Amino acid sequence: MKIDVAFLPKDIEGMNLSDTVCIVLDIFRATSSMTTALDNQCKCIMPVLSVDEAHAIADKIGPVLFAGERKSIKIEGFNFGNSPYEFSPDKVKNETIIMTTTNGTVAVKATDGAYRTLIGAFVNAAAVCRKARQYGKDILIVCAGTDRLFSLEDALCAGLLVKQLSADAEAEPLLTDSARAAVLLYDQASDKLTDIAINSRNGKRLYDLGRTDDVEYCFKTDILEVVPEYRDGKIALFNE
Amino acid sequence: MKIDVAFLPKDIEGMNLSDTVCIVLDIFRATSSMTTALDNQCKCIMPVLSVDEAHAIADKIGPVLFAGERKSIKIEGFNFGNSPYEFSPDKVKNETIIMTTTNGTVAVKATDGAYRTLIGAFVNAAAVCRKARQYGKDILIVCAGTDRLFSLEDALCAGLLVKQLSADAEAEPLLTDSARAAVLLYDQASDKLTDIAINSRNGKRLYDLGRTDDVEYCFKTDILEVVPEYRDGKIALFNE
Repeated sequence: MKIDVAFLPKDIEGMNLSDTVCIVLDIFRATSSMTTALDNQCKCIMPVLSVDEAHAIADKIGPVLFAGERKSIKIEGFNFGNSPYEFSPDKVKNETIIMTTTNGTVAVKATDGAYRTLIGAFVNAAAVCRKARQYGKDILIVCAGTDRLFSLEDALCAGLLVKQLSADAEAEPLLTDSARAAVLLYDQASDKLTDIAINSRNGKRLYDLGRTDDVEYCFKTDILEVVPEYRDGKIALFNE
Repeated sequence: MKIDVAFLPKDIEGMNLSDTVCIVLDIFRATSSMTTALDNQCKCIMPVLSVDEAHAIADKIGPVLFAGERKSIKIEGFNFGNSPYEFSPDKVKNETIIMTTTNGTVAVKATDGAYRTLIGAFVNAAAVCRKARQYGKDILIVCAGTDRLFSLEDALCAGLLVKQLSADAEAEPLLTDSARAAVLLYDQASDKLTDIAINSRNGKRLYDLGRTDDVEYCFKTDILEVVPEYRDGKIALFNE
């Protein structure tokens, strides 16, 4: 088994992923929020790239809620921004949510054609690793990055996942250089994640917007057991 | 001053670098070898992208030597491969070398249009940092990577350079997420660089080819004082 990390969605352009299980990470905050919404019994999330596309799909499929942000701020007229705390059970239970975010939805859609695309985050780290391993395929962790640039928090979570995937593997997996780098990075940072986040580009923006609670939540590890999957244009909890 | 790291040349496509000092790294082995050749009084190195281009330029400018590799192996008929040990004073003094390598020359040419492009490596780490800082510009460290994939050894050297550039800066520089990641990576790995290299993709290939000496040489830090610069299509030691 090979474990690879793409620090940016554009790094996987043109790759044949038909035999690869992808795990998409956008820690601040799309995949943390998606996982939370599904844990709170949201029916499904439909990731789209633009506000226009969100409205066009809503016109077709009927009653939905809209979630999305641009530069960490809720899109005007939408029901939700991108804070995991917004996706509470009373708001999302049995609802279909159309979501467009700056980076996370782009990363999810970059894996179109993969054997499986799982949604990962610190909050469901152990669960997503367990699920990813069960297919016996190569695993590619895709970091969303920010505005096409490397994001520290995504790379740190990638390191945690590579460690967990390696530790529990039956045979020693082949780690690519980027997977090895992610592990070294995580090992150096694991006891000071929040401090490091304060100085990261995305983390600093959330602090400046007063979303310290989001930063802290998004670094909570293994608090959720659900593993959302992207399949046929929808993110949901599929039965195999 | 901003300090940024591009883990791959393609990450800087479309960037306006006219006010940025670039430092190009291809530790195994192009920039380590270029620095060594210039230290051994090679007149200049002309980086080209293909063997055909190498011959076309040679036809124009007269007597030259040819250096280059594909997948770490010397190109047939060339004077040098890409081992720093090949570029000894008796071979290179006062010579013009046309060089084409899989990754390093591509990375150098990706910085066309930069305010300055300096050639860096572990072997001249302190010297290249000193020179890069003197312009008072933003600094972008460009890792060559390998076959368009992330390379651990380049990222490690980037981390060392970011640390040195930050430590000696008059005001605290702004570090991008990738620059912060490179520092964390280097700090975690600095006492076991060679062990880590054995497991990296490029390092393993060099070990398999019996080039342990190259790996060890390329990790020697601050043994050379020269800082080659890429200007007008040539890599040389320019007087300002």
